[in-house]
Amino acid sequence: MTKKSAPSRRKFLKTALAGAGAAAAVPLSVKADDYIEPSMTKPGKGFTPYGMPSGHEDVKRLLRPPGNFPGTGGSLSPLESLEGIITPSGLHYERHHNGIPDIDPKTHRFMIHGLVKTPLEFSMDDLMRYPRISRIHFVECGGNSGANAGPQPPQLSAGGIHGLVSCSEWTGVELGMLLDEAGVQPEGNWILAESADAASLSRSVPLKEAREQGILALYQNGERLRPEQGYPMRLLMPGWEGNLQVKWLHRIKVTDGPTMAKDETSKYSQSLKDGKANQFNFIQPVKSVITRPSGTMTMNGPGYYEISGLAWSGHGKITRVEVSLDGGATWTDAEMPGPVLSKALTRFRLPWQWDGKPVVLQSRSTDEAGHVQPTRAKWKEPYSNAQFYQYNGIQSWQIGADNTVKNIYA
Amino acid sequence: MTKKSAPSRRKFLKTALAGAGAAAAVPLSVKADDYIEPSMTKPGKGFTPYGMPSGHEDVKRLLRPPGNFPGTGGSLSPLESLEGIITPSGLHYERHHNGIPDIDPKTHRFMIHGLVKTPLEFSMDDLMRYPRISRIHFVECGGNSGANAGPQPPQLSAGGIHGLVSCSEWTGVELGMLLDEAGVQPEGNWILAESADAASLSRSVPLKEAREQGILALYQNGERLRPEQGYPMRLLMPGWEGNLQVKWLHRIKVTDGPTMAKDETSKYSQSLKDGKANQFNFIQPVKSVITRPSGTMTMNGPGYYEISGLAWSGHGKITRVEVSLDGGATWTDAEMPGPVLSKALTRFRLPWQWDGKPVVLQSRSTDEAGHVQPTRAKWKEPYSNAQFYQYNGIQSWQIGADNTVKNIYA
Repeated sequence: MTKKSAPSRRKFLKTALAGAGAAAAVPLSVKADDYIEPSMTKPGKGFTPYGMPSGHEDVKRLLRPPGNFPGTGGSLSPLESLEGIITPSGLHYERHHNGIPDIDPKTHRFMIHGLVKTPLEFSMDDLMRYPRISRIHFVECGGNSGANAGPQPPQLSAGGIHGLVSCSEWTGVELGMLLDEAGVQPEGNWILAESADAASLSRSVPLKEAREQGILALYQNGERLRPEQGYPMRLLMPGWEGNLQVKWLHRIKVTDGPTMAKDETSKYSQSLKDGKANQFNFIQPVKSVITRPSGTMTMNGPGYYEISGLAWSGHGKITRVEVSLDGGATWTDAEMPGPVLSKALTRFRLPWQWDGKPVVLQSRSTDEAGHVQPTRAKWKEPYSNAQFYQYNGIQSWQIGADNTVKNIYA
Repeated sequence: MTKKSAPSRRKFLKTALAGAGAAAAVPLSVKADDYIEPSMTKPGKGFTPYGMPSGHEDVKRLLRPPGNFPGTGGSLSPLESLEGIITPSGLHYERHHNGIPDIDPKTHRFMIHGLVKTPLEFSMDDLMRYPRISRIHFVECGGNSGANAGPQPPQLSAGGIHGLVSCSEWTGVELGMLLDEAGVQPEGNWILAESADAASLSRSVPLKEAREQGILALYQNGERLRPEQGYPMRLLMPGWEGNLQVKWLHRIKVTDGPTMAKDETSKYSQSLKDGKANQFNFIQPVKSVITRPSGTMTMNGPGYYEISGLAWSGHGKITRVEVSLDGGATWTDAEMPGPVLSKALTRFRLPWQWDGKPVVLQSRSTDEAGHVQPTRAKWKEPYSNAQFYQYNGIQSWQIGADNTVKNIYA
């Protein structure tokens, strides 16, 4: 579904630029060869051992009110200010249940125990000697986008609604290799992954998938894991719910069944209309969101815009993103100039000439397993009103003639 | 050439672990269910708007002695401490000719002038309205690895020798689109790209390739460009010499021929044995380096190791990386578990059981254009002894029975 982009986009832009008031550049007003910027008149700054963003930028994680416990809650990636598919590690979303532990890698021990032939323990130095793999994958909180399941559309930015998702290049050790080394007993069907944080966060994961897909992540975007993402090590189950990709991992226990830990019963279950609940909903569903333009932004009047956003699915690659400019009546394929990677954020783009009239923008993604992102109404059908986990309904942005961009339920 | 890795690696590891003293993990020494890490006993830290690496890590750029002018020189990426293919933006290499300018994006102007029908100027806000593309590419200084062209092998780390290369996801505007908007006159065959730094760094680039391949980069790894990489904008010519990918870009002048700027005559030319010089050597040649184990490291005695490193080429994708364990007599294909992207760093890996005897490790990369990385002797053949630009000779690491790793010319 990825299409060659340059010719059509250039042609479109040419047309757009020819339109009245649409041109972005202006004819040169100075003699270029003589023009001196102030920065050219004095030597610049020296070197730093570790660089930071420009002081002219002020892009931050969006901190949710932390409530009574300063380390309990979340912070969201400002998706509307980001580009491409890699989330800078400093802006990766956070979700902590009792703060960020400070773990000394020299004393940290990782254990595999339970229904295994040889219970094992590993120092970080031990783990560093194993073969590694690197993969670019998103991690998404099971509660991401849940605000859109509520009765009133929240008037927040794209990141404020959908920013509990981020994408990094992760490097680590395949969990299956270590499980094989310990030797799983025939009765072993599940694992319990346990955190060394003060919440003792624990989640059950089926053994088969943990063995085939699990990664003990040690590096994030080239350097060692950030503290907020589980330093010195976390479980990665690519495409699965963030909560079970246990950070600050210190124990894996092989069990015969799920443990029914507090983190998988009181939370992360999906209450249904008939009063029952779906439990163990592992894979994050296909989703997309237009990040530019998006909620709380102000349009710059009629003219050329690039519509751009992110799509992702826990089931594999994104195969198609469609954009509607009329609230879902008709759809146009967006471009995905790449890279398009399995279980990774995928950037989509569509050139657009806005005539200044009110319009409702939507995006709808499809993954390689054939899943298509549903409307909000369709998503809500099976659930109770309280259920908000794994919300993946289509996001509608209403652009007004007054240049406002609002979140609506369309 | 990319091979499925898991089965063979797992089999190898199983064998390695069965060997005497090779196992990394040890049998569990505590009752796992009762084991409490100190971090579990008190609430962790709260949220931060912009995250930083763990205080337990101390991975820094390697600052070269800056000489008389504090902003003139380079800093190198610590390749031996990094993983995967993305370089964290805080550790991207730097090369400045008169420091890092502080450019206010509100007043910065980018101009296209010279042999064009309509000279244009763009504010940053103007540029932000154009369609964008995102690509993962390396940038490498033309002088990278040049220390290995000298008479004595430098006893430095992998990053200390080869760390003037880094890899990021770049997002920006296609230069060709803007050149077309200005309308190049028939006499226009080259461009001059000029920096707003205090060195007024300027380089000539052939128009055809600048139009087809050039990107005005605005974002790096998801966020706006770092100051050290050209904030608020730089020229990107994927796979070409770093020096001409002009940072802090403020002017592009369309010319009929190369300008012969100081930065392309006094430097970045290649002196030959016959006293002549090659000028305008644009494309960075195929190269690779084993980063683990590598120079200045200490081995941990006989046993299992993963040999890992980076390969890249300005000509396109890496198709093969071979590793020699005997100083170049025989070669084994390394694994490239991916992603393998054009003009991007490519991670290679090879499991290895070290018997503790002296050994010389080498890697040799091949790109999709058929270029094969040469030996040091072969590379030096055409050049004068003073020439060190675009050095891509095979790196040899000598591992001693005393666990030392030394840089040698083999």
